[in-house]
Amino acid sequence: MRRVAVIGVGITKFGKHDCTSAELFAQAAADAIVDAEIAPSEVQALYYGNVTGGETEHQLHMGPLAATMLGLPSIPTTRFETACATSHAAFRHAVMEIASGVSDIALVGGAERVLNVPTDAATEYFAYCSDATYEQSLGLTFPGVFALIARAHMDRYGTTEEQMAHVAVKNHRHGTLNPKAQFQKEISLETVLRSPYVADPLKLYDCCPFTDGGAAIVLAAEDVARRRRAVWVLATEAAADTMFSEIDVVELHDCFTIAEIVATEGLGFFEPGSGGIAAEKGWTSLGGKIPVNPSGGLKAKGHPIGATGAAQIGEIVTQLRGDAGARQVAGARTGLVHTLGGNTATVLVSLLGRD
Amino acid sequence: MRRVAVIGVGITKFGKHDCTSAELFAQAAADAIVDAEIAPSEVQALYYGNVTGGETEHQLHMGPLAATMLGLPSIPTTRFETACATSHAAFRHAVMEIASGVSDIALVGGAERVLNVPTDAATEYFAYCSDATYEQSLGLTFPGVFALIARAHMDRYGTTEEQMAHVAVKNHRHGTLNPKAQFQKEISLETVLRSPYVADPLKLYDCCPFTDGGAAIVLAAEDVARRRRAVWVLATEAAADTMFSEIDVVELHDCFTIAEIVATEGLGFFEPGSGGIAAEKGWTSLGGKIPVNPSGGLKAKGHPIGATGAAQIGEIVTQLRGDAGARQVAGARTGLVHTLGGNTATVLVSLLGRD
Repeated sequence: MRRVAVIGVGITKFGKHDCTSAELFAQAAADAIVDAEIAPSEVQALYYGNVTGGETEHQLHMGPLAATMLGLPSIPTTRFETACATSHAAFRHAVMEIASGVSDIALVGGAERVLNVPTDAATEYFAYCSDATYEQSLGLTFPGVFALIARAHMDRYGTTEEQMAHVAVKNHRHGTLNPKAQFQKEISLETVLRSPYVADPLKLYDCCPFTDGGAAIVLAAEDVARRRRAVWVLATEAAADTMFSEIDVVELHDCFTIAEIVATEGLGFFEPGSGGIAAEKGWTSLGGKIPVNPSGGLKAKGHPIGATGAAQIGEIVTQLRGDAGARQVAGARTGLVHTLGGNTATVLVSLLGRD
Repeated sequence: MRRVAVIGVGITKFGKHDCTSAELFAQAAADAIVDAEIAPSEVQALYYGNVTGGETEHQLHMGPLAATMLGLPSIPTTRFETACATSHAAFRHAVMEIASGVSDIALVGGAERVLNVPTDAATEYFAYCSDATYEQSLGLTFPGVFALIARAHMDRYGTTEEQMAHVAVKNHRHGTLNPKAQFQKEISLETVLRSPYVADPLKLYDCCPFTDGGAAIVLAAEDVARRRRAVWVLATEAAADTMFSEIDVVELHDCFTIAEIVATEGLGFFEPGSGGIAAEKGWTSLGGKIPVNPSGGLKAKGHPIGATGAAQIGEIVTQLRGDAGARQVAGARTGLVHTLGGNTATVLVSLLGRD
């Protein structure tokens, strides 16, 4: 297999947008193509991620639509959907296309638009990512899924609501350092702890927001990448496992604060049951032992589900290039990206590194 | 790149089913795994296609659900959606996974369930595969898209409504030879011509039906395939082009009769404008110059959109193995599969061959 690198990144502002998701993606993609220093016509394939477009925009078959927006109507394109892990899955399959030699340059990413529908409708559409027969019929929406995980973690390890709140406080602080983040204000521990319960023990500020946004990545084969600012894809896997690499910076899936605590344990950064303590002690903060979600994470940056994985990858690339400004993890050489899909039935992990 | 082969095929009966699309896929996949003479645990990845599950079943994130149905909950899986070309796109990406060396055995396919919703709802959901801003807003559903194509073809080449009707008559006759086909009765030219207009010049019998169904394919790398009944993937491309290979049998996308006429020209079997004459003369019938849609095609076999591409590939594999019984194309060694997505914005073509 050939080596594959990220050579371009583009991410829109996350938040409320008044354009279609395909237009959001086109904005991100145009930035990524400029960043990659390629001509648009050099893109040989589009890997496009979107989750709820059928529901929120009455739009399926978005791959060709997104390609047309970019002025590339005839390139091969497929839409990928794996709940919240959608554009990370698209990334993994695009890596295979380059690795196999089918293409030399591929554009990957996704977009989501959900703030154009009422919150109860968005909640329902997101719940379509859980099992219609056995989960939705019980009224299980995603705050409920992660509340069950939180309760089990609290019972087994003594993890506290305060520890979960520390994740929110950290990620909001990181978000103020990221101009693309949806939320740009710090919050206090008290703000989190006094916010209303959404699904006990998760409170409003334990939950990531609904978000519109787009993100794009340009991938290239080694020959093309060598002449550009390459960040190498060291691994991309669709099942989580404990990682023992030397990792300097992490973007992981904090759709709820408990999700960050569990993921820092599952990825092997902390022993099972000590993820909450790590949050409390600041070990996962910028400047801590292992900085987690310097972008603000899903919690503060926002979570446009079809774009989330590509945006996470974009943040790690930015970190490994040393371009992250106020939120830069000094000297970062290797970074990990972790993305969950829906009721956690999908997990993607990719490892990126610079030369 | 490594050579890739189809080693197993499973297709459900097409028509009305009272189970979920994931269950439909599981039925097809179980048959494909038995046909491939592998253990289920040898499957390393699932490429799953579905189009309207969000709308008709309130189910997104179907990859893990389908994998769980198969007793393989931890394999990597992604849902692919490219309108009617969905499972053909999944097939193409799975070929890349095997070719790149990531996996040796992958399960590919899709399922669709649409007969559980009213016909007007199904028509609306299918229309989501056209552009929400510029096509849906004009009321353009798929019979309208293909009626425009038909009218242009008639104006330019003199193609007649009778010639289109010949496609329907042929594919219904072929369907009677395929026990999996939704429609099992022959129809006369008069029946087609006297049927009511759906979108002038297309009449009821020019249109494929709404269909529930599932289809699955097992792909393997050369080492694994050599010990089994391999049908080789000679090419799989996501943009149509004129093909000059020696091709013995074709499954192509006859969602409307005009679509078959246009495709037989576009694929280079007949000169532009002579596809209608070919239909009339019987050149595309079993026993004709180039047998097209021996399965009955989308028109008579049915069109469960998420499963259609995989089912087409399954039919060609069955033909190349010499297992097609009454509808066998004698001595077929090379076969072509052609699948359109939605408003024709996606086109997939794959070429399969036996040793």
